[in-house]
Amino acid sequence: MKKSCFLLLLLLPLLAGAQSVSIDRVNPTNWWVGMKNPNVQLLVHGLGAGTLTYTVNYPGVKLLKTNAVENPNYAFLDLTISPTAKPGTVRLVGKKGPQTVTQTWELRARDKSPKAQGVTAADFIYLAMPDRFANGDPSNDKFADLRDPNLDRANPFFRHGGDLAGAAQRLPYLKDLGVTAIWFTPLIENNQPLTNEGGTMRASYHGYGFTDQYNIDKRFGGNAAYVDYVKKAHAAGLKVVQDAVYNHVGNTHWILQDLPMKSWLHQWPTYTNTTYRYQPITDPHAAQSDRKNTLDGWFVPFLPDLNQGNPYVANYLIENAIWQVEYFGVDAYRIDTYMYNDQPFMNRCNAALLAEYPRLHIFGESMVNNVVDQAHYTRNNINFPFKSNQPGTIDFVLEYAMLAGLKEVGTPGVTGWDNGPQHFYQALAQDGVYQDPTKLVTLLDNHDQNRFLSEVGDDLDKYKMGLTWLLTTRGIPSLYYGTEILMKNFKDPTDAEVRKDFPGGWPGDKEDKFTAAGRSARENEAFDFVKKLATYRRDHPVLHSGKLMQYLPENGLYVYFRYDATGTVLVATNPTDKPTALPTGRFSERMAGFTKAKNVLTGESLSSLATLQLPAKTAVVLELGK
Amino acid sequence: MKKSCFLLLLLLPLLAGAQSVSIDRVNPTNWWVGMKNPNVQLLVHGLGAGTLTYTVNYPGVKLLKTNAVENPNYAFLDLTISPTAKPGTVRLVGKKGPQTVTQTWELRARDKSPKAQGVTAADFIYLAMPDRFANGDPSNDKFADLRDPNLDRANPFFRHGGDLAGAAQRLPYLKDLGVTAIWFTPLIENNQPLTNEGGTMRASYHGYGFTDQYNIDKRFGGNAAYVDYVKKAHAAGLKVVQDAVYNHVGNTHWILQDLPMKSWLHQWPTYTNTTYRYQPITDPHAAQSDRKNTLDGWFVPFLPDLNQGNPYVANYLIENAIWQVEYFGVDAYRIDTYMYNDQPFMNRCNAALLAEYPRLHIFGESMVNNVVDQAHYTRNNINFPFKSNQPGTIDFVLEYAMLAGLKEVGTPGVTGWDNGPQHFYQALAQDGVYQDPTKLVTLLDNHDQNRFLSEVGDDLDKYKMGLTWLLTTRGIPSLYYGTEILMKNFKDPTDAEVRKDFPGGWPGDKEDKFTAAGRSARENEAFDFVKKLATYRRDHPVLHSGKLMQYLPENGLYVYFRYDATGTVLVATNPTDKPTALPTGRFSERMAGFTKAKNVLTGESLSSLATLQLPAKTAVVLELGK
Repeated sequence: MKKSCFLLLLLLPLLAGAQSVSIDRVNPTNWWVGMKNPNVQLLVHGLGAGTLTYTVNYPGVKLLKTNAVENPNYAFLDLTISPTAKPGTVRLVGKKGPQTVTQTWELRARDKSPKAQGVTAADFIYLAMPDRFANGDPSNDKFADLRDPNLDRANPFFRHGGDLAGAAQRLPYLKDLGVTAIWFTPLIENNQPLTNEGGTMRASYHGYGFTDQYNIDKRFGGNAAYVDYVKKAHAAGLKVVQDAVYNHVGNTHWILQDLPMKSWLHQWPTYTNTTYRYQPITDPHAAQSDRKNTLDGWFVPFLPDLNQGNPYVANYLIENAIWQVEYFGVDAYRIDTYMYNDQPFMNRCNAALLAEYPRLHIFGESMVNNVVDQAHYTRNNINFPFKSNQPGTIDFVLEYAMLAGLKEVGTPGVTGWDNGPQHFYQALAQDGVYQDPTKLVTLLDNHDQNRFLSEVGDDLDKYKMGLTWLLTTRGIPSLYYGTEILMKNFKDPTDAEVRKDFPGGWPGDKEDKFTAAGRSARENEAFDFVKKLATYRRDHPVLHSGKLMQYLPENGLYVYFRYDATGTVLVATNPTDKPTALPTGRFSERMAGFTKAKNVLTGESLSSLATLQLPAKTAVVLELGK
Repeated sequence: MKKSCFLLLLLLPLLAGAQSVSIDRVNPTNWWVGMKNPNVQLLVHGLGAGTLTYTVNYPGVKLLKTNAVENPNYAFLDLTISPTAKPGTVRLVGKKGPQTVTQTWELRARDKSPKAQGVTAADFIYLAMPDRFANGDPSNDKFADLRDPNLDRANPFFRHGGDLAGAAQRLPYLKDLGVTAIWFTPLIENNQPLTNEGGTMRASYHGYGFTDQYNIDKRFGGNAAYVDYVKKAHAAGLKVVQDAVYNHVGNTHWILQDLPMKSWLHQWPTYTNTTYRYQPITDPHAAQSDRKNTLDGWFVPFLPDLNQGNPYVANYLIENAIWQVEYFGVDAYRIDTYMYNDQPFMNRCNAALLAEYPRLHIFGESMVNNVVDQAHYTRNNINFPFKSNQPGTIDFVLEYAMLAGLKEVGTPGVTGWDNGPQHFYQALAQDGVYQDPTKLVTLLDNHDQNRFLSEVGDDLDKYKMGLTWLLTTRGIPSLYYGTEILMKNFKDPTDAEVRKDFPGGWPGDKEDKFTAAGRSARENEAFDFVKKLATYRRDHPVLHSGKLMQYLPENGLYVYFRYDATGTVLVATNPTDKPTALPTGRFSERMAGFTKAKNVLTGESLSSLATLQLPAKTAVVLELGK
């Protein structure tokens, strides 16, 4: 927003003279009795709302302080709610001279339904874009009163109509696949107009430009549909991960129409984009200006950057995060653009969430190329000047390592000093930088990247090897929707290429790949492979909480174990293009006492373990037995 | 050594019956009064030396304990030396029945000559192979009584006759170049025979196979020549770095002819080479067997691996390290194959040296590809289970980054997201893992690597850029001999290619590149470049102890500053193949107040700093002025 614009907005109420005052919005839209933190700060907006004198007359609810800010249309009310307060309707009364404004605000009882269950290494997360997964309610596909009233499945950049009702219908599909948690790209209202990006008009179907944090986008079904979805998911035994965006909002967010204060956003004399570079944050030699550009620069021109150093902004975001968990019952948070957020704010936000919900898992997106920078954004073993309290993070470093290794599978160089599985091995070998690497979320691709199958050259052997690594190494595995049915593509020329509709998700779709009958033989081979391994993983705690022991790859052959008191699983990767016999004497530390094995993927029984026969380009998974 | 052999050696004295006893060797060969640690453990060797009852009758010297070990030919005597003891000749008296053996052992006064001065970022280290640098005394080139009696300059794998006398003659050359410290590959006796390596007979000219830690190889001039060399170097204002090898010895080391005990070495049922892999050491998921292979496997078959977990071995090595400093007056230690040593031993050894010589610098060789593993071998900010106390390390990670960046100079990709100077920038950006990155020794090549000029495609622009980075960034720069006269080559097919004689170092050499007249115009251009920058560096403390601030490279252009109260130096790298104008507004944090500059390399004066003109493929060094 330009400075002149901003000043005009500030002056508007004054220019209007002594007009009547009003309250048109209170956030959070409700709260609960019995939260661990008894305090909540209400943002009250309305014409002259900041000029009123407020009173609250409700047993157990006390107005501690009314904060006025630059813009007279805002008041920030600090309330404290006694654990003995009764649920009910609180009346906020604001007075100014002869005028009295009354606004009701609901204080609810906390329900006992499951929420904030966390996701752990026992889970298998499925990431879907709700607009592109399944359309269960064609009546909510578009709305004439939204800034973008369009729907056009033929246009890859427009909204396609997917929604929570459609996703709810596919819960049995995910459960059948072995998935235990669903993560949607954001569901929160994105009432953004089409934006012109390099000459292409694009809709906000991705969801990262919030316009009201207290509404689920009505094109996905609104708040009621989300409440319903989470209940159904929980009933089916699946958890729900919510995608949180604290760093920025859509440029048509309601609050940007009438900013509480200039410092609500990171303001720049001229438009300044973030450099997207993480080095200045951890670099002890960095310039302050580079740090500021990374953190306070805007993600893109239409996503203004929130100033989380402003305590009103911080409170607003933190309370909304808590509200989402309590209201919808979500189990974990994935945090968008984690490293571009103000890190002291992130710690405060994480701590507030974990204080209310100790089992909640939180894992942010920090796309970095090395473990030092990655460790900076989770609980780590490095004495950085700033210590992150984030329980997890998305493990991009391991993803890049797996992909680099898989690309070399089958080449003569794969047996080299640093090639093939060595990438994967060496990345894991640096796990000492993390306090708990099992809390990192692992992946092979996501909605911002080339699809995994295309990354590995549409090679089904490499595909299976990658999925085997993902589902048997440490961490919390995640799968991008459609990977299981061999959806592929590169994100060039545009990321729309990797965000296509799931075939069968729309009424009348010619193909239905949610069913075996609708899938090709190759697609069923892939689906069945993922299902077999995910189901095995789901049912064998050794692949959740068992320790990892990995051996130095020799001649390209990479062997690791997961083991605990309940069992031992051996994973042996042969990345060469020739079958190989692998003597196992080297692995006695983990194999002593075992005499036989079951091949988890083929069902074959092995009656001797002295030498393993490893087919070409294959990762073999063996459950050892005595 | 095979097991059968070892047993035979142990049995020999017994088979010999009641023959007379003797002492033929005591190590350390002498000691000093007034060391901080009053204790010293003498290794006494001789026929039946371990069967004697020892007494020492010398004021202030007390024999605390006599330790017998497996082999009766060894006794380990624990002495304590009072600070009030007088220098003189101690008599060790050993008795067995009617026999008495007396051995004299010298207790010296400590001299006041400079020693253990340390090397710091104020220094510029020159690494030379003494056999290949200069031959000052042709009379010591070969000896018929050594296991390798050969000399053959025409054979790249044989000894060439270089020595300390020759190196001493070239001290003025080094001083003129701006060098402040010399580091020789090891000078200690390598009385090894020729070894057959892949069909090629090779001499031990490299120096890493010690046969007696108390003798400097007589082909280099022996102990006296080294004492003399260090005195001359110190007199010329140069420091001396000694190359220490604790991990292994030559397989003809005297002690291996009659091992004190089997556990003196890491013994294996069958020959086991180290894997050379560092990952198992730091990997929290590693197998113990992989750790053992890395640490206890032998470096090569003819360099048996010492068991530093054996306290007699540890004492032997530590006392020799102290002896070398005290006897020769060296200023710093470079430790060979640092990461293959037992790390608790290394900490003990470092601590013992630093207790006696607090200013001594110690920097080991750990060739790793990432900062996490590199940090493991120096004082770091990572909570590894094992905490290293080594003050420095050789910065291979930064070397690889500089080379990777330089290789991309002039290519269209050099301005990319992770290309060109980004490699260098990103490596430094991870300096937060080190407690003090200024104590790391930086390099562009060494005796085990391709020569720098060949690595950068014989491109003089890249050569100058690399040297500019080396001499202006943080750390203690080191130069491999001959780089300044454009010696080049790849280490394939053999490392002899990068270890050629310095032309002019031998009497009668056709060319003498120690003199300007003997160098080509291009060689003088290189020499003068290094000299100009090294001299500037030497005379400007801001390039030693000034802080580093680096800016995120933009469009490939990389700018950093060294700054302190004495001045500010700006280094701006243009890696593209086109001249570029660089506005400096972005750098106001460091440039505010400065109005002019001197180009350190061209002498040019700049009267305005608003925009810098950067020639193609050049790193400009500017001393800012007000």
